Amino acid sequence: MAAPRGVRVIRALHRGTVTQNTGRDRVFSGVQPTGKLHLGNYFGAIQNWVRLQEEYNSLLYSIVDLHALTVPWEPALLRQSILDTAATLLACGINPEKCFLFQQSQVPEHTEFSWILGCLTNMPRLQCFPQWKVKNASQNYEGSVGLFTYPVLQAADILLYKSTHVPIGEDQVQHLELTRDIARCFNKKYGAFFPMPNAILSSTKKVKSLRDPTAKMSKSDPQKLGTVNITDSPEEIVTKFRKAVTDFTSEVTYDPDTRPGVSNLVTIHAAVTGLSIKEVVHQSVGLDTANYKGVVAEAVIQKFAPVRSEIKRLQEDRSHLEKVLQAGAEKAKELAAPVYQEIRRLVGFQ
Amino acid sequence: MAAPRGVRVIRALHRGTVTQNTGRDRVFSGVQPTGKLHLGNYFGAIQNWVRLQEEYNSLLYSIVDLHALTVPWEPALLRQSILDTAATLLACGINPEKCFLFQQSQVPEHTEFSWILGCLTNMPRLQCFPQWKVKNASQNYEGSVGLFTYPVLQAADILLYKSTHVPIGEDQVQHLELTRDIARCFNKKYGAFFPMPNAILSSTKKVKSLRDPTAKMSKSDPQKLGTVNITDSPEEIVTKFRKAVTDFTSEVTYDPDTRPGVSNLVTIHAAVTGLSIKEVVHQSVGLDTANYKGVVAEAVIQKFAPVRSEIKRLQEDRSHLEKVLQAGAEKAKELAAPVYQEIRRLVGFQ
Repeated sequence: MAAPRGVRVIRALHRGTVTQNTGRDRVFSGVQPTGKLHLGNYFGAIQNWVRLQEEYNSLLYSIVDLHALTVPWEPALLRQSILDTAATLLACGINPEKCFLFQQSQVPEHTEFSWILGCLTNMPRLQCFPQWKVKNASQNYEGSVGLFTYPVLQAADILLYKSTHVPIGEDQVQHLELTRDIARCFNKKYGAFFPMPNAILSSTKKVKSLRDPTAKMSKSDPQKLGTVNITDSPEEIVTKFRKAVTDFTSEVTYDPDTRPGVSNLVTIHAAVTGLSIKEVVHQSVGLDTANYKGVVAEAVIQKFAPVRSEIKRLQEDRSHLEKVLQAGAEKAKELAAPVYQEIRRLVGFQ
Repeated sequence: MAAPRGVRVIRALHRGTVTQNTGRDRVFSGVQPTGKLHLGNYFGAIQNWVRLQEEYNSLLYSIVDLHALTVPWEPALLRQSILDTAATLLACGINPEKCFLFQQSQVPEHTEFSWILGCLTNMPRLQCFPQWKVKNASQNYEGSVGLFTYPVLQAADILLYKSTHVPIGEDQVQHLELTRDIARCFNKKYGAFFPMPNAILSSTKKVKSLRDPTAKMSKSDPQKLGTVNITDSPEEIVTKFRKAVTDFTSEVTYDPDTRPGVSNLVTIHAAVTGLSIKEVVHQSVGLDTANYKGVVAEAVIQKFAPVRSEIKRLQEDRSHLEKVLQAGAEKAKELAAPVYQEIRRLVGFQ
C-alpha cells in the first residue's frame, strides 16, 4: 500500500527480507504515560498516528504503562498520567472507532508472551543496546532488570498482534531490528508464524529543545522552558518562545547546522501551520527573531487551543476515559488471545 | 506451627527478620516438567510435598513450565513432560483435594507480576547468582534472558500467593533470599503487603548419582546409569544398582567422606524403607556390597511398584490429568487475582 503523506515506510531493515503485505496490514504503536505530551511527541508521533487512521484498517495504539516502570516512578503520578495520556490522544484526534486505544497492562498476554521471547533471546543481544548503556550509566550502573529487558517486551507488544507496520522514531530502529530478529528466530523454529514488521518513520523534522536546540525536545529536559507541552497555557507558550535560545543574527533563515535555534522555530512554525519550510521562511521576510518568536508562539497557541480545551473537558470525565480504555483492551484481547493460544501450543505448553 | 517430621523450617534467613505466622500459613513450591522424576526428586522434594499436605491447610504445587524454557527445549517433549509430571505427582500421593496442583503458565499473573518485580530489581543483584554463571558458561556465554531473569519469576511465583513457607533444596536458599529482599523492597515502598516467606529444608540426606557418588542425582547426568527414575522397570533398577560405583571394601558401612558409593546406597536404602541409617547398616551386617546392591534395588522396586503402575494408569487418562490441572489453575487464579489486583492499584496501574 502507498505510505500516507508525511511518513515513509521502511520495508526492509535487513537486506533481502522485504515483506509482501497482502491487505492484512496492521499497525501497532505505543506511547509511555510519563508526564505531559509535548510538541515533539505531537509532531513526531501523535500526528502520524492520527493520519495513519485514514490509511490502515487495523491499528492498535497502546499506552504502555508496563514500560513506564523501567525508570523510578510515582504510583499516583503514573495513575494520573495514564488517564491524561488517553485524554490527550483523544483530543488530538485518535478515534476509538478507527483504532484500538488501550492500556498495555490490561492485556496479560503482553508479559506472558514476553517471557517466552526472553527465553529465545540471548543476553549478549541486549547488552549491546546503546540506550541500555546510557540509561544504566545514568542510574549509577544499577539499572533495573525491567530497563534491561524492555526491548523484549516491545517485541512482544508488536508480534502479539502479528503487526506489519510500526510507526517509530529513528532512535527506535535498532529496537525494531531486535523484534524482527526475534520474529525470524521464532519462525525458523516453529514455521512461518509472524510477518516481519516494517518501520514507518516520520518525515517531519525533529522538534528540538527551545533552550538547547542541539538536543531533541524531551519530557525529561531539566530546563523546563525548553519543552512546550500540548496543555501549556497561552502565557506559558509565549514565555517559552520568548526565552528560546537563538543567535545574534536578527533575520529569519533556515540552516540547522549554523543557526539551530532559529531553524528550530522555523521547523515548529512549518509543522504547526502545515506549510513547507520554504513557505514559512518566505512569509517571515522582514521580521527579526524577537518578533518571529511571537509569531510562532501565536501559531502554536492557535493550533492547540481547541486541543487543550478538549483535553480539559475529557479530564473532567474520568469514567468516560476509563470506559474507552476498557473497551480498547477488550478488543485488543480479542486479537491477542487466539494468537497467544497458538503460541502456547507451538512452544509446548499445551 | 511445628515442622512436620523430616523437615526443618528456616524462619530467619536474615538475622532479625523472624516472621510470626498466625495460622495463615501458605506453602508454595514448584517442579520443572523436564524429563522424568528420579529418586533424588522423590526424597528431596516430592516426599516432603506429600507430608506437608497433612500439616498445612493451604498449599500450592506448581508444574513450572515457564521455567522449563530457560534452557533449550523441545515442544513435543515439554508437552508430554507436563502431563507425565502431573501423573507422577498424583501417583506419589499429591492430593488435589488437599492442595492446588497447577500448571504455572495457566495463571497469567505469574508473568505479569514478574514484570513489575523485575522493575524493582537491579541488574547487579542477578549478575552475582552462581547458578547463572555456571549455566551461562555451559552455554558458551549465550544464556538467554529467561535463564538470567528466572529468579525474579520465582519471586513472583512465591509472593503472588502471599506464601509463607517454601520447601526448597539447599541450592535454592540464595534464590529465596532474593525473594525476601524483593518482598522487603516492595513492602518498604508500598506498606506491609507481603509476609516474609520461610524456607522449609528437607532433612533427608541428598541422593547421589550411582555412577559418581560425589555429585547429586540429576536429570541432566550424561551417565544414564547414574540416575534411577521413579518409572524405571525392575530390570532397569537392578541393572543400575548392579553397576553402581562402590569401592574395594566389601563390608556395608556408612561413611560418606571415605566411602561415598556404598554410603549413597545406605542413604537410598534408609530413605526407601523409612529406617534410620544406623538400622539399615545393622540389618546389612554380613552382606558384601555386591549382594547389598541387590537388596537395595529390591527395596526400591518394592517401594515404587505401586507408584509406577499408578503413573501408567494415569498416563492413559490424559483428559483426567488435564482436568486436574485445569481445576488447580482455576483455584490458583482465585487466590492470585485479588492479590494482583491490589498490586496493580499499589503501583499505579489503576
